Amino acid sequence: MFKKVSIIGLGLIGGSIATGMKKRGLVERVSAFDIDPIALQNGLEQKVIDEGVDSIEACIVESDLIVLAVPVLSMHETLLSLESAFQDKSCTVTDVGSVKSPLIRTAEELFGELPSNLVPGHPIAGSEKHGVTAANPDLFEHHKVILTPTDSVSELATSKVAELWRALGANVIEMPASHHDGIFAQTSHLPHLLAYALVDVLSAQGDSLEIFQYAAGGFRDFSRIAASDPVMWRDIFRANQTEVLNSLDKYLAELGDIREMIAEGRMEELEEVFKRAKVARDHFSGLNE
Amino acid sequence: MFKKVSIIGLGLIGGSIATGMKKRGLVERVSAFDIDPIALQNGLEQKVIDEGVDSIEACIVESDLIVLAVPVLSMHETLLSLESAFQDKSCTVTDVGSVKSPLIRTAEELFGELPSNLVPGHPIAGSEKHGVTAANPDLFEHHKVILTPTDSVSELATSKVAELWRALGANVIEMPASHHDGIFAQTSHLPHLLAYALVDVLSAQGDSLEIFQYAAGGFRDFSRIAASDPVMWRDIFRANQTEVLNSLDKYLAELGDIREMIAEGRMEELEEVFKRAKVARDHFSGLNE
Repeated sequence: MFKKVSIIGLGLIGGSIATGMKKRGLVERVSAFDIDPIALQNGLEQKVIDEGVDSIEACIVESDLIVLAVPVLSMHETLLSLESAFQDKSCTVTDVGSVKSPLIRTAEELFGELPSNLVPGHPIAGSEKHGVTAANPDLFEHHKVILTPTDSVSELATSKVAELWRALGANVIEMPASHHDGIFAQTSHLPHLLAYALVDVLSAQGDSLEIFQYAAGGFRDFSRIAASDPVMWRDIFRANQTEVLNSLDKYLAELGDIREMIAEGRMEELEEVFKRAKVARDHFSGLNE
Repeated sequence: MFKKVSIIGLGLIGGSIATGMKKRGLVERVSAFDIDPIALQNGLEQKVIDEGVDSIEACIVESDLIVLAVPVLSMHETLLSLESAFQDKSCTVTDVGSVKSPLIRTAEELFGELPSNLVPGHPIAGSEKHGVTAANPDLFEHHKVILTPTDSVSELATSKVAELWRALGANVIEMPASHHDGIFAQTSHLPHLLAYALVDVLSAQGDSLEIFQYAAGGFRDFSRIAASDPVMWRDIFRANQTEVLNSLDKYLAELGDIREMIAEGRMEELEEVFKRAKVARDHFSGLNE
């Protein structure tokens, strides 16, 4: 399907795309760039990639697919290094960032519009593990991938990227970037924030060792989320600041209401909140399983 | 080990104790009372119990063990019905409530002190499933059970209850009730509250169907918690009001701080929070696995 794929940023997602494409015979050759030479070395040792190079420019030579798997906030300088690729319409470029509007804004600032061969994407897959050593060729099977091309992106580029994701086992959905960012602020970014805050506030207690020892199911589910990569999440919150603040404020208002219900003993109202939540959860839980 | 066990309140926990004791030959005969006759019928059909009776008084006749598995807030009237059992020192009584101080306070109000044969207990086990139909004889294996007897409770009664739980595969720990309630406000009650609030606030959105469709791993972990029994949780928040408000207020302060970090772009501080949380989680995650 592709002759040479360049992975810019070799972590869990970039590595899983590389090894997934190799496993399925979708690519002849995988080149990778990462600012961390250890990541490239690990990728070579595990045969996730065929070559590791020390600049983006060297990496992308003769590539017909470039996958950007760098932190959202490194996107400006990464896009600058790709200017030649955006001229070469035989090359397709996509990314895997968790927030989509900033990429588009950055590209529009740099190039006037989103290049016709740059297809913004977001695979809804991940793991509490990270790094290329956790790469898994089947990571995307039965997962959703959201593509958010603008009108300036060619249909051919979008369909090539969609086809790649489908070949890796994913279900592909298209939507506007702003819509994507609003949804994920609520379903992904806010829950991560709440989990980080909970683990942080509990671990600051004097008896934190004991607290964690008695942590029951509820808390364990929470704390698993807080094992995610701090730098990646810091960048997500900066990139999606407006949407995150919007959903955080709604949540703080709800939690404030609930606090008053408990403080004032309005337990029937609290029970109504719990019942509504349970009904919603039971209703929707089948959708993702 | 016991001749006749009475289960007062036949749900997941009561049913699992009954079937766990039968499986291990720890009891000759199990009698149960529940305000819901369907629960008793299901318990009989699944051979979790040997008889279902329609009053507490009839249930406990000639019992040498009584297990109280009723909602925390039904405890006052339940204890009143057990006055004869508290006179009969050949009978041991225990409970399985998630909050321990209110049971002790209620008993002290009614009887002057906690009866010498009443051993407050809390098995740290549960499931998003509930009801006797989900009863599982091995539910408590490798789980902790916390006992919170006061000085007025006999050591014999406490050791009988501890022995029972160990026979069901659990690890038994003793601590003061107030300490128990403070710890579980933080590790169990607060996480449940946060999860209920999140599912409720998201399901109130106009696009909630779409939101739940794209819910990724983080949110799924949360929403599982919100499948718990609303009435049981309402009672827990009333029973443990002070401790819950205490930990909720600490959490709201932390979340408010984090909001300001995001709003003001103080991303290094946000990263520090995430890093601290990740370190704590990674450090403690081995404790419960």
